[in-house]
Amino acid sequence: MENRERRNWKEHFPTPIYTLCSFEIKLPRAEKYKTYFVLKSKDWVNVIPITPDGKILLIKQYRHGIGEMSLELPGGIVDEDGQNRQAAFISAKRELREETGFTTEETKYEYLNKFSGNPAMFTNWSYSFIARDVKETEPVELDEGEDIEILFATPEEVKSYLLDGQIHHPHMVAALGLYFLKYPK
Amino acid sequence: MENRERRNWKEHFPTPIYTLCSFEIKLPRAEKYKTYFVLKSKDWVNVIPITPDGKILLIKQYRHGIGEMSLELPGGIVDEDGQNRQAAFISAKRELREETGFTTEETKYEYLNKFSGNPAMFTNWSYSFIARDVKETEPVELDEGEDIEILFATPEEVKSYLLDGQIHHPHMVAALGLYFLKYPK
Repeated sequence: MENRERRNWKEHFPTPIYTLCSFEIKLPRAEKYKTYFVLKSKDWVNVIPITPDGKILLIKQYRHGIGEMSLELPGGIVDEDGQNRQAAFISAKRELREETGFTTEETKYEYLNKFSGNPAMFTNWSYSFIARDVKETEPVELDEGEDIEILFATPEEVKSYLLDGQIHHPHMVAALGLYFLKYPK
Repeated sequence: MENRERRNWKEHFPTPIYTLCSFEIKLPRAEKYKTYFVLKSKDWVNVIPITPDGKILLIKQYRHGIGEMSLELPGGIVDEDGQNRQAAFISAKRELREETGFTTEETKYEYLNKFSGNPAMFTNWSYSFIARDVKETEPVELDEGEDIEILFATPEEVKSYLLDGQIHHPHMVAALGLYFLKYPK
């Protein structure tokens, strides 16, 4: 790997989810340093919850970027310290419980993979887990501003939602696409 | 759909790829308006290029968000006017040619799907196309700062790169996951 030296890191604009930062870098083919912008963010997590009868639990929630409802997997920001797979696992269990009221035993979780937030612009990673045999055991605890509807779909229905674009959040499509690659049934 | 009224749109910080903006919105369950931040961006596009012998063309490029090389599909920003599927198609052909020197006939392209940039924070969409029978016909034209290596992988190899996390850009995993769902072979 060629040397790519960063200098002059600046934090320009913090938001509750990420901070817009910049730095200067000299790339191998370039003659001068050039400024690039990145979004510094905590890690994210999502969960593919599967019920005892083989249905996948999905949520529908309002998303401010597109200003529309979006069909997704439960998930959120990794608030736990560490910003690694272990912290993401704790977050995964918490987000599933808070957003849906569904839980399962720790041993029923399987790590699926991690994805970049978006390697061109985000500094963080997004972890995906499978949670099997999830059951409704707890009350839902929504954050202020969260407005979530729960639904259940068979694997074949989820595949059709992916193919017809109803599920279009890139991290959710990535996680579910990988799940069906690993477990095509 | 309940009414969600936006007011007081502000553009805080422009970068070459997106502009950090905010607005106030009153959600159905909330009593007051609250400020949310979004990243206003042009659409993006990526292409799954397939050679006459059935290999998938991948690129490896340096990404500033993670500060590492990333294994991806060719693609980029939709610079064409319109910001719709037709504009994205023109961009797809241009990005494939500029980044790899590979081209194919228009009729060999197939629209795969569109994904949200990230519905929680980006305003834009990312379009994915399949390009069959791609051949090296043109010189590569890299933008300043682009540093791209081309490689070819069989579908089985690409599946293994998805499962082992070597391909981790969420839009690329989403596009390839959907491709293998549609064409499992």
